[in-house]
Amino acid sequence: MPTSSRQCANALRILAIDAIYKANSGHPGAPLGMADMAEVLWRKHLKHNPSNPEWPDRDRFVLSNGHGSMLLYGLLHLTGYDLSMEELRNFRQWGSKTPGHPERDLCPGVEMTTGPLGQGLAAAVGMALAERMMATEFNTRERVVVDHRTYVFCGDGCLMEGVSHEACSLAGTWGLGKLIVLYDANGITIDGDIDGWYDEDVAGRFAAYHWQVLGPVDGHDAEAVSRAIDEAKADLTRPSLIICRTHIGFGSPLAGSAACHGSPLSGEQIKATRENLDWPWPPFEVPDDVRAAWDAREAGKAAEAAWQAVFSDYGRLFPEKAEAFRRHVSGNLPRDWPAIADAIVRGALASGKDMATRKASQWVLERIVPALPELMGGSADLTGSVGTAVGTSRTIDPKAGTGNHIHYGVREFGMCAIMMGLALHGGFIPYGGTFLSFSDQGRNALRLAALMGLRCIWLFSHDSIGVGEDGPTHQPVEQLAGLRAIPNLDVWRPCDLVETAVAWRRALEAENMPSVLSLSRQTLPHFLHTPEQVEEIARGGYVLLDCEGEPEIILMATGSEVHLVTEVWKRLTAMGRRARVLSLPCLERFEAQDDAYRQAILPDSVRTRLAVEAGHPDIWHKYVGLDGAVIGMTRFGASAPARVLEERFSFTVEAVLSAALDLLHGRDG
Amino acid sequence: MPTSSRQCANALRILAIDAIYKANSGHPGAPLGMADMAEVLWRKHLKHNPSNPEWPDRDRFVLSNGHGSMLLYGLLHLTGYDLSMEELRNFRQWGSKTPGHPERDLCPGVEMTTGPLGQGLAAAVGMALAERMMATEFNTRERVVVDHRTYVFCGDGCLMEGVSHEACSLAGTWGLGKLIVLYDANGITIDGDIDGWYDEDVAGRFAAYHWQVLGPVDGHDAEAVSRAIDEAKADLTRPSLIICRTHIGFGSPLAGSAACHGSPLSGEQIKATRENLDWPWPPFEVPDDVRAAWDAREAGKAAEAAWQAVFSDYGRLFPEKAEAFRRHVSGNLPRDWPAIADAIVRGALASGKDMATRKASQWVLERIVPALPELMGGSADLTGSVGTAVGTSRTIDPKAGTGNHIHYGVREFGMCAIMMGLALHGGFIPYGGTFLSFSDQGRNALRLAALMGLRCIWLFSHDSIGVGEDGPTHQPVEQLAGLRAIPNLDVWRPCDLVETAVAWRRALEAENMPSVLSLSRQTLPHFLHTPEQVEEIARGGYVLLDCEGEPEIILMATGSEVHLVTEVWKRLTAMGRRARVLSLPCLERFEAQDDAYRQAILPDSVRTRLAVEAGHPDIWHKYVGLDGAVIGMTRFGASAPARVLEERFSFTVEAVLSAALDLLHGRDG
Repeated sequence: MPTSSRQCANALRILAIDAIYKANSGHPGAPLGMADMAEVLWRKHLKHNPSNPEWPDRDRFVLSNGHGSMLLYGLLHLTGYDLSMEELRNFRQWGSKTPGHPERDLCPGVEMTTGPLGQGLAAAVGMALAERMMATEFNTRERVVVDHRTYVFCGDGCLMEGVSHEACSLAGTWGLGKLIVLYDANGITIDGDIDGWYDEDVAGRFAAYHWQVLGPVDGHDAEAVSRAIDEAKADLTRPSLIICRTHIGFGSPLAGSAACHGSPLSGEQIKATRENLDWPWPPFEVPDDVRAAWDAREAGKAAEAAWQAVFSDYGRLFPEKAEAFRRHVSGNLPRDWPAIADAIVRGALASGKDMATRKASQWVLERIVPALPELMGGSADLTGSVGTAVGTSRTIDPKAGTGNHIHYGVREFGMCAIMMGLALHGGFIPYGGTFLSFSDQGRNALRLAALMGLRCIWLFSHDSIGVGEDGPTHQPVEQLAGLRAIPNLDVWRPCDLVETAVAWRRALEAENMPSVLSLSRQTLPHFLHTPEQVEEIARGGYVLLDCEGEPEIILMATGSEVHLVTEVWKRLTAMGRRARVLSLPCLERFEAQDDAYRQAILPDSVRTRLAVEAGHPDIWHKYVGLDGAVIGMTRFGASAPARVLEERFSFTVEAVLSAALDLLHGRDG
Repeated sequence: MPTSSRQCANALRILAIDAIYKANSGHPGAPLGMADMAEVLWRKHLKHNPSNPEWPDRDRFVLSNGHGSMLLYGLLHLTGYDLSMEELRNFRQWGSKTPGHPERDLCPGVEMTTGPLGQGLAAAVGMALAERMMATEFNTRERVVVDHRTYVFCGDGCLMEGVSHEACSLAGTWGLGKLIVLYDANGITIDGDIDGWYDEDVAGRFAAYHWQVLGPVDGHDAEAVSRAIDEAKADLTRPSLIICRTHIGFGSPLAGSAACHGSPLSGEQIKATRENLDWPWPPFEVPDDVRAAWDAREAGKAAEAAWQAVFSDYGRLFPEKAEAFRRHVSGNLPRDWPAIADAIVRGALASGKDMATRKASQWVLERIVPALPELMGGSADLTGSVGTAVGTSRTIDPKAGTGNHIHYGVREFGMCAIMMGLALHGGFIPYGGTFLSFSDQGRNALRLAALMGLRCIWLFSHDSIGVGEDGPTHQPVEQLAGLRAIPNLDVWRPCDLVETAVAWRRALEAENMPSVLSLSRQTLPHFLHTPEQVEEIARGGYVLLDCEGEPEIILMATGSEVHLVTEVWKRLTAMGRRARVLSLPCLERFEAQDDAYRQAILPDSVRTRLAVEAGHPDIWHKYVGLDGAVIGMTRFGASAPARVLEERFSFTVEAVLSAALDLLHGRDG
């Protein structure tokens, strides 16, 4: 008798509950409930090669309800990825490949770090878009080298989250036919039966988004699920939602109850589950026939080999395309990139133009968009304001798969999550823009991108009270502080075109981290930079103006406030004071420099220090200490012309000079 | 000939474009497009009294697309609110009541500060819920004192935003029949014609949410809009969405184009608009007949007087209910609140129990929920984990209008925005919980609540790597830094039950600001507090343990790290070192103390300082300066048992002691 679907699914179930029991922590309900869906998708439909999780033409699988991590680890282990039984035994332990929620950089085969609900689904929209865009770019009539699907498992929680609306509405508009979402409709979330808080007609909602909606099917009926997947695959013009009715905790005594959502089953309950599922084997043991039925290594190798054969032909027929494909997928910048980047920075230096740094960013984009076809720009309905589109930008036609600039609509979180998907899929370097104050909405996606080390580039403009009349809802105060506290994220706040060019360069070259460029609405003066200074911008902080001998005072600023401190420097110098000006465009880069460099520009012996930044001041005490001062924003802004706000909030030469003189008098006294 | 609807609407249009022209900044497209909808709603339907914007039974009107602010200012001016023509002339100027986006605290009649799209709509769901809950609470068979509607204007942008999904899905589930949304479907956003990024079937989507969907109607046909509003009012069991097809910039030469969205019309264009609309009057002049047609003062006074008569009867018939109504609406705590609060704090002191601060918060809630019927609790599907429900909590039945605890589902942003609505409506003090790492999703609502000064209380638990096995997606690192940088928001991180009780007290008593309580997942030791210390907790920082004479070192910490520094204090004291321990549960309160108090506990002369907090360290340099040290988290956490993480990330007595000794040796040396 052949090994049945149910037996294979039960292997996933038992591995999950045993590992969770051993860890004394985890979420058994979801793996038990989704095991049948997972079995049929992974054994009958998913195109993948366990021996090479990086095969570019693999199907993508995203577990958007990431708390069901043990389901995924079971799948990866059983199909033959480099994930040993020992790792399953070490579920949720320090140093294992099997953390509580799947982490992309820790575990081979995990496409995306998930856990915060809805974001896996949203990022999957980006993956499916990436597939379509690459297919158009690289496939030829003769050879198809990009042809894969993006599958998502999601739960009720994912669909309640707002980001699911933003991304799925777009996926429908874009007609992403190769996106297939299996919705684990078990009717239970942590708080219990969802009737009281989630009774929307999900099918109607997704139909309104122009998706193909299939089901409800019995999520424990492998054949029914498989037929629905076939139907989903057959529609190449609409994304598909397959509604799978399941029982959370299927097979356990707690089936159908929220009680099995987030706590391990007891020993007794596990025993009962084994009996219910007719699974006599001890923990972490899988019988050979089940193992064999799961093993996808041979089939995976064959599938990739067939693709490699096609790609090898493709390489002969279209050597340039093949080379470009390889480069895009690798994430490497073009070989001549350093020369291009040097030329851009030189051009910026030579330009001598005063401009808003959002315009400076656009100036840079004018030059790099043509040079880097892998750039995929976009904005959340602020294309002109942020300056994300340039002469060579073409609005995407997602149905045709052409273009390099996305109108995300008024969807900041959706944009940030879709950008993650573009980066995760590979082949693209996404950048996207909105106002800095609305970076809030996308913040948790920035966090996930930083955690995964994805090269996403965010352009956040209108970065202070310099916004002016639009008022406090549109004037960021706390956002820089919040962003700078996210680990593995570079936050640049350049003061002019040259710094903006260097920031862009560094953001593109930082392969394993996202970057933010905080950009001014208002015009800023161009600064003269020596060649040494230009080199030092990339270090995140440098001496912009100096004195003879040891300075009496160090003035420091970023972005739109740098010109203020340079004016104050002139006044102090004219008074015979020894002052130094630091521009600190990227505190994260500056912190990464060695002690000697940091001491050279910010010597411990000079404690009279003044920082000026039109954002929350607290972070600056790290540099001015207890004896220095900070001019920042400790309240919300206001609606008035920017010039008036600058006066009211002390961002004027007079106010900064006065603060500097107060400090100097304190020191003298 | 009576003054026509169109003439009245044109008064709004011309006031808007003239004020925007004068300010040389603003958004003419929306007021021009929505003027007819506004005219019919405000002149035929809205129940309000311009002489008393605080009348509790007024209809609420929320302009969710707040960039159309001049429409609202025109309405308020013309109907007779305390908003002079001079204020309209000063649109977007410093000190005016007419900022770029409507601000509730600046302008009488503005129900809510709007601008970030979608949040007005989401908060309106909270207002409509508040009305229903208060109606059940206070209306009697004999007298109805709560019976008003919540009207919203929103645009395409609002409906693209994810928060609209979260809140509107709930509004449908809740059957909020008195919520009426007029959707300005003009098909244009900043980036242009929305076809490429927003083609969902909005009617189908809202039908899926169980709303009554009306239209599309011609949004420039006052009668058609009025009939739809009548239909909306007639359905008391479902919220209504009225789809109004309009032309952005109606009447101007730029009608139908994104070009009129966000920039003033030119003088020429304004001239042409005047001609198109047959409006010969000069700027800021409204003819008497139009003024008279708009004037709502008499009708408003009469409406409120009729209600006052009912309420006066009500007061005679149900004096206790009337008193409670007045108190709830005023936002005042009960007269015996100080005694209740004192008793809770005394009880906390006496309890002597070690507990997680999330449990401590629940302990406090057990005592205050019965005492404060105006509390409306809830959580984003983490009721048990955060501990938001207690013995006297009753899940709301929104159709009946009963209960005091809301299951918001997995909707953090929706929860935070709906809480704003509950607070804005009046009658409720909302509190709501989720994990600290998911506060990200609701962050922009926290910001708006802080900007408006709303008493919302957020319980954010699982506030560090103490989360353990769930791993880095669930372990906050940067969130405290981000929240502390929001102006007008108290962020409490209590270390035990006593501090938690004081934090709750202060959050409730701080009428004009929101508060966050950052709460541990893990159990923390109870500390002995002197009566003086208990008093000082409310000051945000105090000496928990001290030495004789001036300390050699000051150790400071918050929340789950306080016990670490007290253990280190014991070890240092045993070594003969003079150490002081500060607990700093609320930096915002501490900063608000006078210099003398702050110097007394953190004297300038003691520079050997060590701060310990399991979050991003940078803010602590404000207190330790350049010569101190901070033990914090500069990277993301990891999945492992909490104890293991504490060791790996140096949150152990040994690691803290070693850092303290290093500092002391540096000082000695």
